Amino acid sequence: MRNPLSKRIMEIQPSGIRKFFDIASEMKDVISLGVGEPDFDTPWRIREEGIYSLEKGRTFYTSNAGLLELRNEISKYMARTIEVTYQAEKEVVLTAGGSEGIDIALRCMVEAGDEVLVPQPSFVSYVPCVAMTGATPVVIPLQNENQFKLTLAELEAVTTAKTKVLMLSFPNNPTGAVMTREDLLPIAEFVLQHDLYVISDEIYSELCYHGPHVSIASLPGMRERTVVINGFSKGFAMTGWRLGYCCGPEMIIEQMIKLHQFAIMCAPTTSQYAAVEGLRNCSSDVEKMRKSYNERRRFLMHAFQHMQIGCFEPFGAFYVFPDIREFGMTSEEFATQLLMAEKVAVVPGTAFGDCGEGFLRISYAYSLEDIKEALRRLEKFIMKLRGCESGC
Amino acid sequence: MRNPLSKRIMEIQPSGIRKFFDIASEMKDVISLGVGEPDFDTPWRIREEGIYSLEKGRTFYTSNAGLLELRNEISKYMARTIEVTYQAEKEVVLTAGGSEGIDIALRCMVEAGDEVLVPQPSFVSYVPCVAMTGATPVVIPLQNENQFKLTLAELEAVTTAKTKVLMLSFPNNPTGAVMTREDLLPIAEFVLQHDLYVISDEIYSELCYHGPHVSIASLPGMRERTVVINGFSKGFAMTGWRLGYCCGPEMIIEQMIKLHQFAIMCAPTTSQYAAVEGLRNCSSDVEKMRKSYNERRRFLMHAFQHMQIGCFEPFGAFYVFPDIREFGMTSEEFATQLLMAEKVAVVPGTAFGDCGEGFLRISYAYSLEDIKEALRRLEKFIMKLRGCESGC
Repeated sequence: MRNPLSKRIMEIQPSGIRKFFDIASEMKDVISLGVGEPDFDTPWRIREEGIYSLEKGRTFYTSNAGLLELRNEISKYMARTIEVTYQAEKEVVLTAGGSEGIDIALRCMVEAGDEVLVPQPSFVSYVPCVAMTGATPVVIPLQNENQFKLTLAELEAVTTAKTKVLMLSFPNNPTGAVMTREDLLPIAEFVLQHDLYVISDEIYSELCYHGPHVSIASLPGMRERTVVINGFSKGFAMTGWRLGYCCGPEMIIEQMIKLHQFAIMCAPTTSQYAAVEGLRNCSSDVEKMRKSYNERRRFLMHAFQHMQIGCFEPFGAFYVFPDIREFGMTSEEFATQLLMAEKVAVVPGTAFGDCGEGFLRISYAYSLEDIKEALRRLEKFIMKLRGCESGC
Repeated sequence: MRNPLSKRIMEIQPSGIRKFFDIASEMKDVISLGVGEPDFDTPWRIREEGIYSLEKGRTFYTSNAGLLELRNEISKYMARTIEVTYQAEKEVVLTAGGSEGIDIALRCMVEAGDEVLVPQPSFVSYVPCVAMTGATPVVIPLQNENQFKLTLAELEAVTTAKTKVLMLSFPNNPTGAVMTREDLLPIAEFVLQHDLYVISDEIYSELCYHGPHVSIASLPGMRERTVVINGFSKGFAMTGWRLGYCCGPEMIIEQMIKLHQFAIMCAPTTSQYAAVEGLRNCSSDVEKMRKSYNERRRFLMHAFQHMQIGCFEPFGAFYVFPDIREFGMTSEEFATQLLMAEKVAVVPGTAFGDCGEGFLRISYAYSLEDIKEALRRLEKFIMKLRGCESGC
């Protein structure tokens, strides 16, 4: 019996996050700071709109690109947040979560022979989704010294004649790094000079704690070269609804709608109706969650300072990325021992790329209470490692 | 500025259904027998369960493969319907509709160098999804004389050393054809002899009007060689919920879960909770819809007989596929003129493959009232074409 599998899929490594949580899920009394999703239920107004649409029997397909009403709201939202104008009819497509957007953008833009630049540490899907197209993922290892921002020098070092697309993802999962307009300007200039395109995953755009999010699409000349990926999962606490969207130039979005139609048909209908309400009337709910995350972020940063754990201050998403190199263990060893000894689950930095070695991803999408207890346990663990159990 | 698009996506033809409905949607007073989705709202019990899960705040990701509770129900459902046993934990994955299942099954199984057999007329996604993997779609034109079933001779004629996968889709969209156990046996035998695999799209399995659905996976030796695609869209009238599933041998499903995790994350959560209720307590709702479709199907067959339009009797799905070759027009000409002259929208058979030339897809997922009015108009149109306006 021949092998049923394609070579391509066999070469894809399974996610390191998943592997780690398979262990954690089998233990009792574990406190997790591991998962990358909001701890808040979806705001009630949004759920209520979903309920209403089910009561009304709106259980049919929408158009392939999604409800025009929602695409109109997204177009307005983009204009008021990142200050880029997209035509709702032709430059916006609704997807089954941001993940689908990443996948179909890559499938429409690259193939064997192309190189795609993937700065890491970053979301676990980028490299596998690039590899599935046949294109070559070229990893750019970002540096703690640069607060895990992408620098021009790093970009220059890896760009070749085959480079076609740069994946950007700021605010970043797992580091929490953001890039300001000043940080992005030289990157954009380089992209223009080298005739590259950008797929910019901005799923954490609502979670910026130090000034508003800046999209590379808003920089001069970049609108026509950028596909912006966004969605409702993180900012609106709608992970389970599986609703994302992509905005970009018509020429690319048109092809993405074609592929989306064949591969998915349309995004979930109930989620689409609910999201209209989210964009129209829920900015105060989003603001409330952002404030709460920020409070936890500051608490964590203070705690790390107190524990003398090195950690650059991240201004976005809901992650911190502390440096654990002083303990002379790999990230996986550290995370595993922390889990076994103190029953705290965090994710090894290496789950997001080899250059995450020596770091941990700690999510603060948890209650302050849980965070406090987890930190108490972490401190105990660290004190032991430092050999000063009675305090030092 | 270089072309942002991959060669692969540019070579994919847009769907013929879509093109046709773009015209129809701009006209007034059109009666459509065109769309491929149930006209029923989702049964209330299922919607109620969705509402309840939203009220309870179940708005988070599920595990990548989907709620185990639902996978357990699917496993039981498969055992009692097609009589094949699948392990819920390892051999079932929930997808964003059946469409995603088709796409990820192909991506995990084939690539450049492989050939995939696609009997046509069939669903519009198969050929594009095969082409996107780099594999070569090899079309098998099915014949009206065989009631659009796949025959052993047809299969033999196109199988080469490169053939890896056979796409099957019975009950069929657009012809309504079903294949019985006797029809499938020689196909299965050939698949075993030639070491092929089957992706069997059984999304219309609940809509069989002449004995229960038979899956090729249930034939001797075929369980290990078949990925069954199914979902809730058609039988349970849940199109907008975007919930499908795939069952197959662990070795393949494991890889599909890996890709699904990267490309989609998980199927919509509300839909998963609602579907549990669908499988547990809604078989009478499904039965009611099936009876209603069957009534319309019989009505249509009688009407065609009366109009002397050739049409083999289809025993599945909710389509009939009448033969319009006597009128000496292409399917597209016929459908366009029917739309212009009588404002009835149907889909040209060619939307489902070149061998659909000379046929129309007429959906009976419409009220009897609409069907009657559409047939009245169709008869008028045909009478004119036959040159006997005063009846002949």
